Amino acid sequence: MTPQASTPAYRRLSVTERRRQLLEAALSLFAHRAPEEVSLDDVAEAAGVSRPLVYRYFPGGKQQLYEAALGSAAEELRQCFDEPRQGELVPRLTRALDRYLAFVDEHDAGFSALLQGGSVVETSRTTAIVDGVRRAAAEHILGHLGVTDPGPRLRMTVRMWITAVEAASLIWLDEDKQPPTVELRDWLVEQFVALLSVTAVRDPQTAALVAGLSADG
Amino acid sequence: MTPQASTPAYRRLSVTERRRQLLEAALSLFAHRAPEEVSLDDVAEAAGVSRPLVYRYFPGGKQQLYEAALGSAAEELRQCFDEPRQGELVPRLTRALDRYLAFVDEHDAGFSALLQGGSVVETSRTTAIVDGVRRAAAEHILGHLGVTDPGPRLRMTVRMWITAVEAASLIWLDEDKQPPTVELRDWLVEQFVALLSVTAVRDPQTAALVAGLSADG
Repeated sequence: MTPQASTPAYRRLSVTERRRQLLEAALSLFAHRAPEEVSLDDVAEAAGVSRPLVYRYFPGGKQQLYEAALGSAAEELRQCFDEPRQGELVPRLTRALDRYLAFVDEHDAGFSALLQGGSVVETSRTTAIVDGVRRAAAEHILGHLGVTDPGPRLRMTVRMWITAVEAASLIWLDEDKQPPTVELRDWLVEQFVALLSVTAVRDPQTAALVAGLSADG
Repeated sequence: MTPQASTPAYRRLSVTERRRQLLEAALSLFAHRAPEEVSLDDVAEAAGVSRPLVYRYFPGGKQQLYEAALGSAAEELRQCFDEPRQGELVPRLTRALDRYLAFVDEHDAGFSALLQGGSVVETSRTTAIVDGVRRAAAEHILGHLGVTDPGPRLRMTVRMWITAVEAASLIWLDEDKQPPTVELRDWLVEQFVALLSVTAVRDPQTAALVAGLSADG
C-alpha cells in the first residue's frame, strides 16, 4: 500500500486489488442494509469508483456481486480455523478464535444478518454457504485434534461447540461486545475442553484425546 | 373422546378439537413438503374432512393455516421446559429434555425444516417464531436455576447451551436418531452442568449456583 492510500478513487489498482476493494465496499453495505436496498450506484460510491467499473468486474450485476461478497466472507471465515497443526491444542484453538472473533468484530452487522437470515434474499443459497463454513470449521478442528475417523459422539461434540461459538458471537454483538474478546476467547476454549471431557465419559475415542490433552498440558 | 374415534371423518368434534385436528394434519404435511407445495385440498384429505370445512376454520387460507400450525408447534416446544420448579435441578432438566426430544422425534422433518429455514416461505416471520421459542426456553431454564436477575455471562451460557441442544437435535435427526434419546438426554444435561462449571470460574453468580448444585447432589 502506498502513502496515497487515503484517496482510493485515484489509485491504480491491480485487477485483484480492485476486485477486493469492490467486494469490501459491497460487504460493508450489505452489512447494514438488505441486499435489495443496496444499488450498484451505492457500491460504486462507497468504493469511490464509477458505476461502469463495477459492472466491468461484476457483469452479472448486484446478484453476482452479492454472492461474490458472501463467498469472500465465507472464505475468510473458513481460513480462521486453518492453523498449522503443531504445538499444543489449546494455544492453536486460541489463535483460531482470535482470528474468528476479529472477523465477527469487523463485520458485525453483516455477520448477524448472514447468520440470522433476517434480511437475506436467497435464503437457501445463503444457508448452504453458512453450512459450508460450519463444516469446514468442524474439519479443521477435528484435524487439530489429530482425528481422521471421528465417531458420531466426537463429531457431535465438535459441531455443538461450533454452534455454541456462533451463538456466543451473536449474543456478544447484541451485548455491545461484552465481555472483551480475550475473555470471551478463553472462555470458549475452556468450554470446548469441558465438553470434550463430558463426552469422554461416554466415548473411548474422546477419552483418549482428553488423556492426550492432559499429558500435553 | 368417543369409541368411534377410528373413523375421524364422521366424528363430531368440538371447535377446539377440530381446530387441533386440522393443525395436526397441516403440521404433518408441512413436515415433509414445502408450504407452497401443500394445498388446502391436501390438508382436507389428510384430516378426512371437506375443503369448505378447512376454510371455515381458516378463512385466511393456506397462509393462515401455516402460521397457525407453526404457532402451535412453537407453543408445544415452549411448554417442554415448563416444569414445576421444585426438587433438584438435574432431574427437572432431564424431564424437560425428555419432552423436548419426544417432540423432535415426532416432528422430525418439520423440525429440521423449521430450524434450517430450508423450505420455509416467510423466513423473517419464521425466524421470529423460532427466536421466541429460544427466548422462552432460556427464561424457563433461568427460572429453574432460581435466578431472577441473570448477569451477562450466565445468560450467555444458558443461550449457548440451548443452541447446542438445537444443533444436537438436528445432527441426531441426520444420524438416524443415534445415540438413543435417553443417552442423548443425559449427555446434554451433563454438558449443561459442565458449561456452568466453566462459567463459574469467571462469574460469581454462576459460581454460587454451581455450589448450590453440588450441595443438592
